[in-house]
Amino acid sequence: MIPLNFKAKRSEIYLDNAATTVIDPSVVDAMQPYLEERYGNPETLYHLGREAKEGIDKARAQVADMLKVNPEEIYFTSGGTEANNWALKGFEFPAEKQVLVISAVEHKSVLAPANWMMNRGLASLYIAPVDAYGMIRVDALEAYLKDGKVGLVSVQFANNEVGTLQPVKEIGLLCKKYGAVFHCDAVQGFGKIDFTAAGIGADMITLSGHKIHGPMGVGALWVKVGTKLEPLLHGGGHESGKRSGTHGVPQIVGFGKAAELAWNSLQTDMPRISQMVENIARDMTLVGAVRNGHPVKRLPNILNMSIPGENASLICGILAKDGICVSTGAACSTKEGQSHVLMSMGRDYNACVGTFRISLSRYTKSGEGTMMIARLHNALREAKIRDVL
Amino acid sequence: MIPLNFKAKRSEIYLDNAATTVIDPSVVDAMQPYLEERYGNPETLYHLGREAKEGIDKARAQVADMLKVNPEEIYFTSGGTEANNWALKGFEFPAEKQVLVISAVEHKSVLAPANWMMNRGLASLYIAPVDAYGMIRVDALEAYLKDGKVGLVSVQFANNEVGTLQPVKEIGLLCKKYGAVFHCDAVQGFGKIDFTAAGIGADMITLSGHKIHGPMGVGALWVKVGTKLEPLLHGGGHESGKRSGTHGVPQIVGFGKAAELAWNSLQTDMPRISQMVENIARDMTLVGAVRNGHPVKRLPNILNMSIPGENASLICGILAKDGICVSTGAACSTKEGQSHVLMSMGRDYNACVGTFRISLSRYTKSGEGTMMIARLHNALREAKIRDVL
Repeated sequence: MIPLNFKAKRSEIYLDNAATTVIDPSVVDAMQPYLEERYGNPETLYHLGREAKEGIDKARAQVADMLKVNPEEIYFTSGGTEANNWALKGFEFPAEKQVLVISAVEHKSVLAPANWMMNRGLASLYIAPVDAYGMIRVDALEAYLKDGKVGLVSVQFANNEVGTLQPVKEIGLLCKKYGAVFHCDAVQGFGKIDFTAAGIGADMITLSGHKIHGPMGVGALWVKVGTKLEPLLHGGGHESGKRSGTHGVPQIVGFGKAAELAWNSLQTDMPRISQMVENIARDMTLVGAVRNGHPVKRLPNILNMSIPGENASLICGILAKDGICVSTGAACSTKEGQSHVLMSMGRDYNACVGTFRISLSRYTKSGEGTMMIARLHNALREAKIRDVL
Repeated sequence: MIPLNFKAKRSEIYLDNAATTVIDPSVVDAMQPYLEERYGNPETLYHLGREAKEGIDKARAQVADMLKVNPEEIYFTSGGTEANNWALKGFEFPAEKQVLVISAVEHKSVLAPANWMMNRGLASLYIAPVDAYGMIRVDALEAYLKDGKVGLVSVQFANNEVGTLQPVKEIGLLCKKYGAVFHCDAVQGFGKIDFTAAGIGADMITLSGHKIHGPMGVGALWVKVGTKLEPLLHGGGHESGKRSGTHGVPQIVGFGKAAELAWNSLQTDMPRISQMVENIARDMTLVGAVRNGHPVKRLPNILNMSIPGENASLICGILAKDGICVSTGAACSTKEGQSHVLMSMGRDYNACVGTFRISLSRYTKSGEGTMMIARLHNALREAKIRDVL
C-alpha cells in the first residue's frame, strides 16, 4: 500500500531524530486496519471490540518483550510526557520518605512536574548535579539517599540533548540499598540500547512511540507490580484501573510494531549509525567544533557539538532552507533561554549559543552526513557574510 | 486510496456509536500524509516541522469554528478523559470558593476525578440530583450555588447512557449569577447538536474525536481566556504552556477534519438518525421495552430502553454472535455493577439489568434498525430457551 521508497519524495536530510522520527511504513501498515475496518472500542464485548482489544494485547506483549517484563505491567499513555508526569505525580510517597530526587539534566517533562510538586508541597525536591559530560554524580545521589528520606528517584536512561548514558544500573542498586523507588525516563534509550528493566533495576520506565519510528501521541509507563502509584487520569477504569480513557488503538498497535522492529534491528542498525555519527563528529571538528557529552558512554545516534563564536540558531535556519533538519538541541534560541543541560555541565553561554544537536536513525542514509557537512560549510560562510554586512 | 465502501467488507450492524464510531474515510485521507511524509515535530523550525504545525493550526481552527470560539482557546488533549481530568484537577479554586458541583449522572471521567479531589481534600464535592429523565435538578443546583462558595460546576451537555440533554444554558446563567466557573463535558453532544460555547455560557468545554467519526486518542479542552486553569501535564510547554507533550499530529489533523464534517452534515444527518431511533423505539416497545431518558430533550442518536425481566448482558452476547453491536449501556454486566445513571434516575435493579443502549450515527443505514429488531426477537427467544434448559 505504501511504497517503500516513500521518503524519496522528500528532499530533506533529516538529522533531528531525537525530536521525532519518520514512521516506519510497516508500522503504518500495522495501524491501517485499525484506522479503517477494525474501529471497535476495545472495552466492548462484540467481535469489533474484541479484535481491537487483541490489537492492544499484542502491542502490550511487543513492548513488554523489549523490556523483558510482564505485559500486565505495561500501561499505555498518550506519550512520554504523560508517563513522566504520572510516574512522579502519581507516586505515593511513604510518610517517612517524602523526598524526590532527580538529576539536573532531566527532560522538561520530569523537571517541570518535579518543580510543580515541590511548589505544591507534595514532595521535597533534591536535584543531583552532573559532571562535565552530563552524567549524574553518583556520590551526590548517594549522599541524598543516605538518610533514608528519599521515596522516589527519577533519572533518565540517556540525555536527550547530549546523548550521555546515565549510570542507571548503579542508580538502581543504590535505590534498592536505601529503599527508594527508581523511575527511569528511557524515551531516548529505548530501541537504541539493549537493556532490560531488571538489568537497570528500575521500578518504573517511561517509553515513547514517536522516537522509534512509531506513531506520535502514544507511549507507555512500565510499572513493576507492587509499586505504589495512583492514577493520573481517573475515569472509566481502563488499563486495569490505572489509566482511564478510551485507548488510541491505531497508535498503540503501531507502537507495539515499532518496538518490535527497533528490537529486531538494534544489533545491526546501531553500529552503523554510531559510525556515521563518528564521521560527522570528525568532520565538524575540522570547523572548530567541540563535542559535548560523554565520549564513550553515550547513545549511538545523538551527536552534540558546539562551534565557539557561532550562532547555531542562525545557522540552523540557513541549513533549514537548504533542506537540512538539525536542531540547536540546547534550545538556546527559544524563549526558554539557555540549555539547562549544557549549563549543568558547566558550559559557558558562548558554547551554548553555538551548539548543534545532530541525531540519526536507521533511516539515515550513508551519504547524508557528508552532505550535511558540505552545507554546514556553506551556512557558516553565509552567516559570516551576514555578520559583516 | 481507501474505497468509499470499505465498511461493506464487514457484516456487522454497528449500533454502538456512543462507545466509538468508525473513522470517516476522508478523515483517514486527511491523516495519511502526516502518517507518512509529513512526520516533523511541530515544535521545530524547518519545513517538516512547520507543515506539521500548519496541520495542527488548521485543525485548531476547524474545532474552534464549531464552537464559535477563538482557536487560541482550543487545547488538544489525548481525549475526553484527559480533558475532563484537566478541567477539574487543574482548576484553581479561589480561596473562598472551594466547592465543586457535578451532577449525579456525569461520565466516570468527571465522577472519578471529582471523588479523588474530595478524598484528597482538594475541594468539597456536592453532587446534584437528577429527575426521572436523568436531567439535573436546577433547583438543587441553585441551592448549592446560593451561598457563593461554589468555584466550579461540571455538568455534561448530554448524558452518554440515556441521551438526555442537560439544561446547559440555564446552568450557564446560574453559574454566571453566582460567580462559578462552568465546565461542560460535551463529548456526546459535540457534532450531534448545534450549539456554541457562548450559547451555553460555558467557560470550559470537553470534546473528543472518536465519537464523531474522528480518530481515537485525541480530544480537546476549550478554555475561555481568563479561566484559571493550571496544566495537568507539565513539561516542554506545548499548547501555549498549558498542555505539554509532543502533539499526536495525525490524530489532531483527523480530529479537525472530523469536526468540520460533523458540522457540515449536522442539519441533514441528525433528523434522519432521529427518525431511525424513533422507529427502533416503536418496535422495541412491542416487545415490552420501556424508554429511559427524556422523551424530547435528548440526543438524536442515543436510544436507551429497558425490557423488564430480561438480562440485557446475555442478550447482547447473543446479538453479538449475530453481528449486532449494541451495548447494555448501563454497564450492568461489568464488574462496576449497576449503572449510576439509571440508579440516579430512580430505576430499580430489574430495569437496570434489562437495559439496552442503541446508538446510531450518520453511517447507520436505513435497513439496519429493522434487522436489529428481527435479531433481537430471535435473541429474546434464544434467551428464554436457555432459561428453561
